[in-house]
Amino acid sequence: MPQTPHVERHFTGSATVRDAVIGMSDGLTVPFALAAGLSGAIDNTTVIVTAGLAEIAAGSIAMGLGGYLAARSDAEHFHAERSREEAEVREKPEMEALEVAEIFRGYGLSAEEATPLVEALRKRPDAWVDFMMRFELGLEAPDPRRALASAATIAGAYIVGGFIPLGPYMALGARMALPASVGITLVALAIFGYVKGKFTGAQPVRSALQTVVIGGLAAAAAFGIAKAIS
Amino acid sequence: MPQTPHVERHFTGSATVRDAVIGMSDGLTVPFALAAGLSGAIDNTTVIVTAGLAEIAAGSIAMGLGGYLAARSDAEHFHAERSREEAEVREKPEMEALEVAEIFRGYGLSAEEATPLVEALRKRPDAWVDFMMRFELGLEAPDPRRALASAATIAGAYIVGGFIPLGPYMALGARMALPASVGITLVALAIFGYVKGKFTGAQPVRSALQTVVIGGLAAAAAFGIAKAIS
Repeated sequence: MPQTPHVERHFTGSATVRDAVIGMSDGLTVPFALAAGLSGAIDNTTVIVTAGLAEIAAGSIAMGLGGYLAARSDAEHFHAERSREEAEVREKPEMEALEVAEIFRGYGLSAEEATPLVEALRKRPDAWVDFMMRFELGLEAPDPRRALASAATIAGAYIVGGFIPLGPYMALGARMALPASVGITLVALAIFGYVKGKFTGAQPVRSALQTVVIGGLAAAAAFGIAKAIS
Repeated sequence: MPQTPHVERHFTGSATVRDAVIGMSDGLTVPFALAAGLSGAIDNTTVIVTAGLAEIAAGSIAMGLGGYLAARSDAEHFHAERSREEAEVREKPEMEALEVAEIFRGYGLSAEEATPLVEALRKRPDAWVDFMMRFELGLEAPDPRRALASAATIAGAYIVGGFIPLGPYMALGARMALPASVGITLVALAIFGYVKGKFTGAQPVRSALQTVVIGGLAAAAAFGIAKAIS
């Protein structure tokens, strides 16, 4: 990507910020909704805290390890596709050249206008393969070292997020814990949504409203279902 | 993308399949781990089923609604960036032309070799904007109608996946439910991982092993934590 000044303006947050947002988004929402839901059926804060901590363990491992393995298999998928493109550029250059021309025909360029580019790529098989990976398949080389850092960030953010709604159940009695947890978590969701909006370039206030609505709806649904069973 | 025969070989499953995989992956894992975890602390299957159903409600809403809003804000982000590129192509064509040349310099093309392409794009401002969106920013036009279908598929798959580990707790007594749930769910995770591997082009057996390990680790961690508290 060219390092021109205006590229900076398209910046929408680093990969680490994105991972933290992914983890915290679910970490704030699901343990919160589970704890609030169980409060509709059970008066015992020990059970609610146990369920909440079990959920945090399960959710952070599922998201973190799942993300790690997904990143690893993305990297393998990329290398498998790259080998395939290398073979095609080597063995069927005519067909690949037609595909390059085809890509540019999609942007209104005639075969004649695309010819110099096709010829230039033909002279550079490596660059040609890179070009096909990005422009035909839409794949970018993943960074293999990111997988572990990404998994740790997602899981860590999930755990941090999950302890916010559980805190009141650990510190307060059954009657006070639910309203305290709802209040604290809705505020946390609003702040998180606002900051997330700032990073992703969305309107912060609308983003805050959306995270509050998702968390609130999830908690209300869980509460309703638990209440209906008990 | 060109409709040549070999594109077919790069196919890795439709968007609906991907959404179903996302939802079922977490739906099988988290309610399973939560129920198994609570079994380490509580003998009462009613409490476990209540917690499991509350988790399914919370998780499916958080994932489905979260996915819906993320798709919507992706679409808004795309349109905002497209307006910006349109303005740049209109107001600073010289700078944008330099950026196109810069993109191709990344593939080893000289400024002279890139010139015909730059000139061809200059004549077609709309195609030029499309080109910058895809090749400079790596953004593809999202389908706004996908958002709702995607949310419903993710949430539905989460619910279907979540009922598999909960089934034994609903049908059996406390002593039989845990081993039955573990057995059924590990088999379901293996089948799911195998099918997922087929769709994503990974080795099916390895994919099956991975989903079983994630689910098993999440359940073991949740069980250990719940046991330690009780």
